[in-house]
Amino acid sequence: MPRTTTLGRPVILGIVGDSAAGKTTLTSGIAQILGPARVATICTDDYHAFDRRERAENGLSALDPRCNHMDILEQHLRLLRQGQPILKPVYNHERGTLDRPDYIAPKPYIIVEGLLGYATRAMRDCYDVKVFLDPDPKLRIRWKVKRDTERRGYTRDEVMWALDKRRFDSPTHIEPQRTFADIIINFFPPLEQMEESGAHLNVRHILRPTLPHPDLTPILGMSAQSGLHLELSRDTDGKPVDVLEIAGTIPERRALKVEDLLWALIPEASQMRARLGAYDGPAMSHPLALTQLFIAYHMLMAAEGIHAV
Amino acid sequence: MPRTTTLGRPVILGIVGDSAAGKTTLTSGIAQILGPARVATICTDDYHAFDRRERAENGLSALDPRCNHMDILEQHLRLLRQGQPILKPVYNHERGTLDRPDYIAPKPYIIVEGLLGYATRAMRDCYDVKVFLDPDPKLRIRWKVKRDTERRGYTRDEVMWALDKRRFDSPTHIEPQRTFADIIINFFPPLEQMEESGAHLNVRHILRPTLPHPDLTPILGMSAQSGLHLELSRDTDGKPVDVLEIAGTIPERRALKVEDLLWALIPEASQMRARLGAYDGPAMSHPLALTQLFIAYHMLMAAEGIHAV
Repeated sequence: MPRTTTLGRPVILGIVGDSAAGKTTLTSGIAQILGPARVATICTDDYHAFDRRERAENGLSALDPRCNHMDILEQHLRLLRQGQPILKPVYNHERGTLDRPDYIAPKPYIIVEGLLGYATRAMRDCYDVKVFLDPDPKLRIRWKVKRDTERRGYTRDEVMWALDKRRFDSPTHIEPQRTFADIIINFFPPLEQMEESGAHLNVRHILRPTLPHPDLTPILGMSAQSGLHLELSRDTDGKPVDVLEIAGTIPERRALKVEDLLWALIPEASQMRARLGAYDGPAMSHPLALTQLFIAYHMLMAAEGIHAV
Repeated sequence: MPRTTTLGRPVILGIVGDSAAGKTTLTSGIAQILGPARVATICTDDYHAFDRRERAENGLSALDPRCNHMDILEQHLRLLRQGQPILKPVYNHERGTLDRPDYIAPKPYIIVEGLLGYATRAMRDCYDVKVFLDPDPKLRIRWKVKRDTERRGYTRDEVMWALDKRRFDSPTHIEPQRTFADIIINFFPPLEQMEESGAHLNVRHILRPTLPHPDLTPILGMSAQSGLHLELSRDTDGKPVDVLEIAGTIPERRALKVEDLLWALIPEASQMRARLGAYDGPAMSHPLALTQLFIAYHMLMAAEGIHAV
C-alpha cells in the first residue's frame, strides 16, 4: 500500500460545517471512492480541550476555539501533510470524555472533518481541497435531532436546548469559515416537500475559482427538467462563482451518465463505484453520490499534482 | 516568564536509565535548581503503545521499543526543541492504563526522563545534555522493590518476578544507550556498608569529552580523605574519560565549598540552593546534591549558548 501520492505527499481534504451538517455521511462516501485503506479520517472534535463535565463547569461551547487545542490541530495538520504519523487525541461523543489517543499512520489521503478546520491561516494552508457544508438550516436541525436522539443518547428537548444555547456560536465561529472553502455544498429540500430530509433532497454546489473544476459541458445544455443545472452567479458575498444544481428528482439514467463522465476522468477508482450515495436512510441519493464523486475527483487530481498547490 | 533561552530555543536534558535507577529523584532536584516554572518534565513511559492488560496479552515488555510509540516520541522531542507545544500521551502507572493526554506548553528547559530516550539517532540529536543513570545493580533492585511495593501497589514477589522477566530486556534495550551519554552517573554503596541505599551512597560521574565540563582544579589536589576525587581513566568500552568521585562521607564543609564553586558559575539560580539533595529518605545527600548541581550547570551553560550545539 503506497503511503503517499504522485504529488509526493498526502493530499488533504477539509470538510467543515456546523454540527449535523452532514460531514460524516459525505466523508464516508468519499473515503469509499478513494479506497478506505488509503484514507485516514480525522475528526477535529477530537481536539476538544475539555470534556463534557468541564465544559458544563466553565460554560464554554465545544464550538468555541478556546475549548479546543487549536495549536495542536494546526501542528497535526502540518505533520500529516508532511506524511508523518500523529498521536491523535480522542473525544468520546457517547460518554463526553477525553480518552486514550489513537495512532494515525501516514496515508495518501487525509480527510479532516469538523467544526473549526479553517479557523486559522496555518490550518487553511494545509488543505488541497476545502469543502464547506452549508445545508438548509431547518434541514440541519432535523438531521441533528435525529442523530443526537438516535445515536448520542440525548432527548429531543436537550437537542433543542443545545441548539438554542449555540445560536450565537455558529455565526461567530462556524459561518465565517465558509469564505475559505473552494466548494460550498448546500443540500435543501424541494419547495413542495419541505419535510424531505433524505434521498430527494436537492444539492447546490457553489464552485469558487480557487480550484480547476471539471469540464461539465458534455452533460449540460439539456432541458431544464434534466435535473442538472450550471450557471454563473454571485455568491452571498458578491463574488463571482459557478453554481451547479443537482435535483433530487434527477432521472436515474441521467445521474448515471454524469457518474460515467466523472468515473471516466478517474478510472483508477472505478471499482468503488457501487457504494456511492449511501446515507442514513432507505434509498440512495443521486445528489449525494454525485457530490461525493465531484469531491473525490478533486482529491485524485490533486494527488496527481494536476491542481495548483 | 520567558518561553525560551538566550540560545533561542529550549534546552533539552535527557535522563535515561533502567527502571528505578533514580531518574525521578535526580530530575526533581534539577528542576528545582532551574526553577520549576521554567521546566517541563516529560516521562517517556507515557509513550507506551499498550496498556498493562494488552502487554499481558501480547507478551511485550514495557522496555521493548515495539511496546512504545518511538516515532511519536522522536516527533515530540523535535517539536519541543523547536519550542512548540505538544499533546503528550499519558500512561497511568497506578492503574496501568493509557489516559487522556496532557497539553505541554513550551518552556525554556525540558527534561526528558525514561527508559528509551536515546534509542534512535533522531532522538539523540534533540538533546543538549545526555545523562545515563547506571547505579550499582543491587542498589537498583533495592530501590525498585521499595518504590514498587510502597507506591505502585505491587508485592515484593511481583517485583522480583518482573525483574526476572526483564533480565534480557535491560541488556538488549537499556544498556546499549549508555554509550550515547555525555555523563554517566553511578551511585554505589561504600564497601563497608553494602546495604546503604540513601544519604551515604557514593557517586561516580563518568565525564565524556562530548561536553565542556567545569574546571574543577580549584577544589582538587587535596587529601585522599577529602571525599572528592577526579582522575583520568578508561571507560568500560576503553575510551578515555574523566572520572569524578564524590563520597557519601564528604565533609559538610567541603561539599558546601564545591557547591559554592558551582553556584558562583551560575549565580542566577542561587535562590534555589536550599532545596538540593532531597530524596526519598531522612537526610540530604551531598553526592546527590552535587550531581544535580553539575547537571544543572550544564543546562544553564547550554542555555547561554556556551556549549557547542
